[in-house]
This record gives sequence, C-alpha cells and structure tokens, in this order.
Amino acid sequence: MQSKSSPLGEFDVIQRFFKTQSDAMHASNPGSVTLGIGDDCALLKVDPVEEIAITSDMLVSGRHFFQDANPEWLGWKALAVNLSDLAAMGAKPLGFSLALALPGPNSAWLEAFSKGLFAIASQYDCPLVGGDTTAGPLNICITAFGSTPKEKAIRRSGAREGDDIWVSGFIGDARLTLAALRHEITLSRPDLEKIQGRMHQPTPRVELGIALREIANSALDISDGLLGDLRHILKQSNKDAEVFLGRLPKSDTLRKQSLAIQNLYAASGGDDYELCFTAPSSKRDAITKISADLNIPLNQIGSIKPMQHSEPEIHIVDNNGKELNTQEADLLLKSFDHFA
Amino acid sequence: MQSKSSPLGEFDVIQRFFKTQSDAMHASNPGSVTLGIGDDCALLKVDPVEEIAITSDMLVSGRHFFQDANPEWLGWKALAVNLSDLAAMGAKPLGFSLALALPGPNSAWLEAFSKGLFAIASQYDCPLVGGDTTAGPLNICITAFGSTPKEKAIRRSGAREGDDIWVSGFIGDARLTLAALRHEITLSRPDLEKIQGRMHQPTPRVELGIALREIANSALDISDGLLGDLRHILKQSNKDAEVFLGRLPKSDTLRKQSLAIQNLYAASGGDDYELCFTAPSSKRDAITKISADLNIPLNQIGSIKPMQHSEPEIHIVDNNGKELNTQEADLLLKSFDHFA
Repeated sequence: MQSKSSPLGEFDVIQRFFKTQSDAMHASNPGSVTLGIGDDCALLKVDPVEEIAITSDMLVSGRHFFQDANPEWLGWKALAVNLSDLAAMGAKPLGFSLALALPGPNSAWLEAFSKGLFAIASQYDCPLVGGDTTAGPLNICITAFGSTPKEKAIRRSGAREGDDIWVSGFIGDARLTLAALRHEITLSRPDLEKIQGRMHQPTPRVELGIALREIANSALDISDGLLGDLRHILKQSNKDAEVFLGRLPKSDTLRKQSLAIQNLYAASGGDDYELCFTAPSSKRDAITKISADLNIPLNQIGSIKPMQHSEPEIHIVDNNGKELNTQEADLLLKSFDHFA
Repeated sequence: MQSKSSPLGEFDVIQRFFKTQSDAMHASNPGSVTLGIGDDCALLKVDPVEEIAITSDMLVSGRHFFQDANPEWLGWKALAVNLSDLAAMGAKPLGFSLALALPGPNSAWLEAFSKGLFAIASQYDCPLVGGDTTAGPLNICITAFGSTPKEKAIRRSGAREGDDIWVSGFIGDARLTLAALRHEITLSRPDLEKIQGRMHQPTPRVELGIALREIANSALDISDGLLGDLRHILKQSNKDAEVFLGRLPKSDTLRKQSLAIQNLYAASGGDDYELCFTAPSSKRDAITKISADLNIPLNQIGSIKPMQHSEPEIHIVDNNGKELNTQEADLLLKSFDHFA
C-alpha cells in the first residue's frame, strides 16, 4: 500500500541489524535451528521426548516503556519478558521470532536495540530465527520457543493444599524505579542506579525454572504484581492462599521506604520477572540447595490452602501477624491490566 | 505503567473473544496442542519425524490495511498471510499465537475480528494457542507453527537450472482491487465484488504446498509481487530466470484492463498469496494432476537459467516474444518494501 524505494529498506534492516548476528550465533552453535532468517519460515528440529513451549509478548511504546527508552535496554527487555515466561514453565529456550514496527528505519536506534537483543539472546543461547519488520508506531512483538521433557512443564494449575509458596529474588524494585522516574517518590541517584536495571534489564530465571521441573507443583512469572499473578495460580488450581507481607523479599533499597510503600510495591508492583512457585514442604531442602547452587534468593512467603468459597481468596497477613480486611487487601490485589 | 481498572479488561477480552473459541476448537480436535490459552506458555507436542516451521507477520493499520478495514476480513487475512508462509514451505498448520494491540477494547470490532479469525483457523485446522493483548495503536502480530517431515520443507534455495517456474491461481487481482479502492482505475461494482475477496480474504495454498513437498525444488508465496519475490528464489539459489509475461495467469476481470496494467499488476502487484515454485520438467504430469485434484490453476510461466553475472537476473519476455530492456524490466521488478 506504499511507494517502493527507500534509503534503508526492509531487507537492509533485516540483513544489517538482525540476520548477520543471527547467522553468527547459529554458526557457532547450530542447536535446534535447521533454517534461520531468509525463507518463508524458520525450521526447528525437536527432540522427540520434548514438548514445545510457546509464548508471545507485545511491547508498546508509552505503555510498556517510555517513548525515549534506551533502545539497548529495550532490546534486552523485549526478549527477557518472553524468556521469563519460558522459565515459568521450566522450559529451555530454543529460539525466538521478532516482529518489529518502527516509525522509520533509524540506524542508531536499530544498532542499539539489536545490541541489547543479541546480548541476552547469546547469554541464554536463544537464537533469533525469523520475523517481520514494517513501518508503523513502535511495537515490539517477540514469540519465544522452548522445550520441556514431555509432561514435565510446570503449569499454573498444579498447586496443592499445603504447598509452600515461594518467590525468587527481590520484588518491588522495578516499581520503585518507575516511581522514581515518575517523581512519585524521591530516590538518591546511587540508589536509583543500584536498582534501575531491575526495571530496564530484568533477569529471566531460566536456570531456576529448569531446576524446578521436578520440584514445583505450579509456577508463573511475576509480571503484573505478585498477588495478582498468584491469583492466576489459585484460580487454575481452585485453591486459597495465605501470604505473609513480612516475608516478601525486598532489596535494601526498597527497605528504606515506608512500610506502606514497601508492602505495596512488593505485593503488587509488577515488572520484576521473578518466579512465584508452589512446592510441597518436603521439597524445602531441595529448594534451599537450588538457591545456593544458582545463587538466587528463594523465600517462602506463604502457603496454599483449600478453597473456602466459590472464588479463590488470598489471606494477607500483615507485619504484625494480623490478617488484612477486604478493603486493605484490595489495594494490594489489584493487578496491572494492559487495557486499563 | 497504567491505572488499574476498566469496563472490559485484558482478561475479559481474552476470555470472551479468544479463549472460548480456542477451547472449543481444542476440545473437538485436540491435535498437537497439549496446553492452550491461560498459562505462561502454550505447549505443543511434535511428531518425532517432523520439523517445526515458524513464521511471523505483523499487520499495521494504514500500511497493510485501511484504518476502517472490515475487522472480520482482517481477522481472516491476519492468519491467512501466515498460513501462506507455511504453505510455501510445504508445512501443515499446527497452531498460532496472536498478539494484538488495540486503541481500546471495542466489543463490536473484537467480535467481528474474532469471527473472521476463527473462520479461517477452523477451515485450516490451526488452533489459537496463546498470545498477548494490550492497548496501543492497532497492530496484529501472528506467529504460526507448522510441521513438515524432516528435510522435506521446500526452501527458496533449491531452484535448479532447467526447472520450470510455476504460479498458482491468478495474480494481480489484489492489486487491481487496491487500485479501484484508491480510484486509480475505474472498476464496475460487479467486477469489484467478483475480485475484492482476493485482497481482503486471500486463500492460503496450504494443500498445494503439502502436495508439492516431493515435487518442487523451491517455493515461496507471492506477497510483495511475483517478480520481486521470484528474485528471492534466484538470489538464494544463485540462478537467473526467464519469465514470459504472456503466460502470467490473470482473471477475466484483470484481462479487461489495458495490457500495460495487466502486466504491471500481475508481475509486481503483490498481496495475492499465491505460490510461486520451481520444479523439474519431468514433474509436469504430476503437477497437472495436482492442479486437477485440488482444483487450483497451475501455470508454467518460465524457467530457471544458469546465473550469467554476479547478481541473479530475470529476463522478461513480453507478449510479442521480445525481451524487455533494463528500464522496462525495472518497472516490473520493483517489489513492495514495508519501510518504503
């Protein structure tokens, strides 16, 4: 529907910023990709004892990131959020496709975006296999593929009564960074620098997800806020939960804030891309060992209870051991909605 | 990054317009999908003798479709263009993921979009397995998965000297429709109604692609224009081609236009989603039989030649048997560029 010539066309963009790097990764480690960028489809070979896990995330300017966001961080984050979904199923990354709408072919932006994208792709051995580029309002859509041994994927629906509820790493720092950037709170420059990577370049817990395959009964990644996300596990498992606010794992930087802010950001902040999972209490030693082996804090924040009413409920216990009333709980339970 | 309540939220949209239909398809034919919408990832099981083919297409308002485009047609077309890529590799559809950015949750739009989407998904037995929805400028990104027997996918790089070049169906009608809608040409209402489906609801040649697995040496789908797309086969196969304009398959409606328009639209129009493939002349009888069995016109439009210079060339022969000069050929060779 458009005219037909340009200084930096679609094929130049693909070749210069994506195909060369993708081919290099592929050459150094062919892995599962039997055909990469350049045909109508990419081709993956799959181990016959595996299932394929598939996830898509679309990032939109002004909603998932600021319009002037550092493109290198954006390249990292766009893949990180997908790898985090693979991690939450216990899947090992196989590759990803990238569809990108750009207002125009901006070489400096593409160079930086591509650098961040391939930095994380290399780190997690997850090659770019194909995709699409077009002009349009900035939009980054990645679909990532992973593999799990058959019937070993960790689903949201598997939580059992009596399971411990665990959270990896620290939560709330991404929200704290956003609050500082929006001037909702004041943060010293060193404090901001210490935590801002948590929002801009989150760490997908891929090794942890794989280690949890035989351990966890259910899992998901915390993208929209711990309690709101936990509710997805409860809904699919038909269970209630008890969560202790005092046990939510928080960084020293977040701990400098008021207790109200600490609880709010840790319980409902979102964008941390840590894992929340449930496991029988018989697995506590195994989980402590995984935490030590991977050098990732793993904290038990509550437990799974039988469902008492027609809808799953989270009983939130405050720092003084008192259960929050409905109004207090609702403030912490509201999760991020991408249409709201 | 937004506030947290809305009359029709992200999860309502997924449940109401996508998950219910997806679950129904899944229930009536579980196929390869072991886990559909609702977890961090979807899960597919894969036959051990198969490879997975993956393709992504991102459709942007104002570039790939008019802003007021019929959402039912759009739902159809968004999946059709991906199925067409699977067809071009000879892959059988397994499923697809959908990422959708919408200015707001518009129920009437979503209802119609979903209707068109599931109409084609059902027709080609290709279930929706997951995805993402968000607010943002209208953007539809589908990633589709298919399977081919190992090493049987039809690649762009396989064209051999002496191969016939074939085209399925008729080409040029999508461009003719666009020209009429843009008032570049005048078309009677009955003529427009006869051909406009070719632009709005293209037919992916999935059965044809599968039938060509053991027949074609190379293939692709015609999305940007026949000659420009054919050049991708030539580049990857290091070959030249000879193409006869008089043999390009055109509808009766296109044949009413001037010869110049006929040639231009058929040779470089794009958006037809027919297959262009090459095959040894020994396969002509087999191809004629496929054409009859599937009731799809298949026309031989030229042949593959050895590459004479450092870049592949297409020698275009006009309706009088005379080869076009460089200037004349360039007019037909310019292909659609999504950044132009």
